[in-house]
Amino acid sequence: MVWCSGWRLASAVSQAGGLGLIGAGSMRPEVLQEHITKYKKSPGKSFGVNVPLLYPEIDKLMKIIVDEGVKIVFTSAGNPSTWTGFLKDKGITVVHVVSSVKFARKAEQAGADAIVAEGFEAGGHNGREETTTMVLIPMVRDAISVPLIAAGGIASGRAMLAAEVLGAEGVQVGSRFAASEESSAHDNFKNRVVKAGEGETMLMLKKLTPVRLMQNGFFNKVQEAEKRGATAEELRELLGIRRAKHGMFEGELEEGELEIGQVSAAINKIQPASEILHDIWKEYCDARKKLSL
Amino acid sequence: MVWCSGWRLASAVSQAGGLGLIGAGSMRPEVLQEHITKYKKSPGKSFGVNVPLLYPEIDKLMKIIVDEGVKIVFTSAGNPSTWTGFLKDKGITVVHVVSSVKFARKAEQAGADAIVAEGFEAGGHNGREETTTMVLIPMVRDAISVPLIAAGGIASGRAMLAAEVLGAEGVQVGSRFAASEESSAHDNFKNRVVKAGEGETMLMLKKLTPVRLMQNGFFNKVQEAEKRGATAEELRELLGIRRAKHGMFEGELEEGELEIGQVSAAINKIQPASEILHDIWKEYCDARKKLSL
Repeated sequence: MVWCSGWRLASAVSQAGGLGLIGAGSMRPEVLQEHITKYKKSPGKSFGVNVPLLYPEIDKLMKIIVDEGVKIVFTSAGNPSTWTGFLKDKGITVVHVVSSVKFARKAEQAGADAIVAEGFEAGGHNGREETTTMVLIPMVRDAISVPLIAAGGIASGRAMLAAEVLGAEGVQVGSRFAASEESSAHDNFKNRVVKAGEGETMLMLKKLTPVRLMQNGFFNKVQEAEKRGATAEELRELLGIRRAKHGMFEGELEEGELEIGQVSAAINKIQPASEILHDIWKEYCDARKKLSL
Repeated sequence: MVWCSGWRLASAVSQAGGLGLIGAGSMRPEVLQEHITKYKKSPGKSFGVNVPLLYPEIDKLMKIIVDEGVKIVFTSAGNPSTWTGFLKDKGITVVHVVSSVKFARKAEQAGADAIVAEGFEAGGHNGREETTTMVLIPMVRDAISVPLIAAGGIASGRAMLAAEVLGAEGVQVGSRFAASEESSAHDNFKNRVVKAGEGETMLMLKKLTPVRLMQNGFFNKVQEAEKRGATAEELRELLGIRRAKHGMFEGELEEGELEIGQVSAAINKIQPASEILHDIWKEYCDARKKLSL
């Protein structure tokens, strides 16, 4: 979500009854500051900020978050014990994103208020265990006692209800909002997501950090390199820098890195965020009704 | 399931209210004949036979199936148009196993009475699209009109209800029955399944036919070969023949090929098949009740 979730999308989601997140992972500290300031001028109420814990200037992000009185922080991609205590001391609710039972337990022990468990089908960076949402959610539910938010493969009310059945109290929806009108992603990227068919995303770059990417010229080069057994160093060189920004934010569809979930195959239109939330809620209610027949 | 589902397991499942399948893929024609004969002497009622369509002596299997009056055939791993018409002409119900929307449509067009859609998390042979059960089931449901059976990651009543929410009319449970008392798998293998933790199965051998395997000595050799970019030919040589039989049926845990689903991480005991069915049904009813709170 990092290249898609600026203040505009977060605000639209919060106004429609969801919890909008500003994805700080793609932002320089001063850009995060700007997004929070703009958010506060918008009609959006509560919001959260997502912070990847491997962010190089994380101290600066955390200072902004505290100074701006942000109430909810989603942490991901790193050790939850480093920052959870600090944020909790400031009265901030901390939600940590994991892709395994092992790290769900660690996050709970570190004091996280809730856990996002993200399955193999999710877009972007992902776990090495490759555990799918269907298998992961019940196992994490049985292992922890704090609230559980399911992620990965969830873009509809049917999937939301399925996640609830599997043991989640909430869901995190990425891909469908990446293709929303308010997403800061480039229109080229949104149109590509909407066109994606089944099998068009794959988990790649496993020798570096596994990441789910959409097929394009860059993807093909990675695939070819991996097939011939390219080393981590060769892959790092091939990846280079700024590819994700280039692809998702600037709309370079062939040479950019296009991070999106497997469920993009089921996403068929670019909609306003409020309409997406409304649709998901309606589908959820319909799915509940259908069950009681 | 091929090395696990002989007449004994199929009969136990059918007696407990499920539809037991005899997995012909691991059997020579005369062995299938023997299993059907033994099945008929058991108290099991209706049963099916699973036939991989790439089976070398498939004509012989089909003759036995017709001569023995088998009523339900699950076909997999091949083109459904080759045998569906033949079987339907004999009044046999045909269910075809797929891992993509594309092949679900083809199977329906070929006349299949129902479709099994199997997600990435399933054990054994698997699709190249790597679509997970959570993403696959709603897409297949929207694409076909015949009944849909969900497979992959389903070993509990919670998962069964989740599959129903996603649009399936039934579920196919493999891994949990592979570790049942009546399974023909070797006790060593069953004990290994019960001990498996998260991340201990992976989809391997993608340059040949993708297959989900459990970590062991053979798995490590394949992983090492794949990392260095081994060719399909090298992998075929490494795989050799009879490895699956050696692993699952004869209990050679280090050098055998151990096919099992990702959900093995959530399977913790060897149980009689009837108890498994009873547990799943109870969990399913509990999950429904919990939803209506």
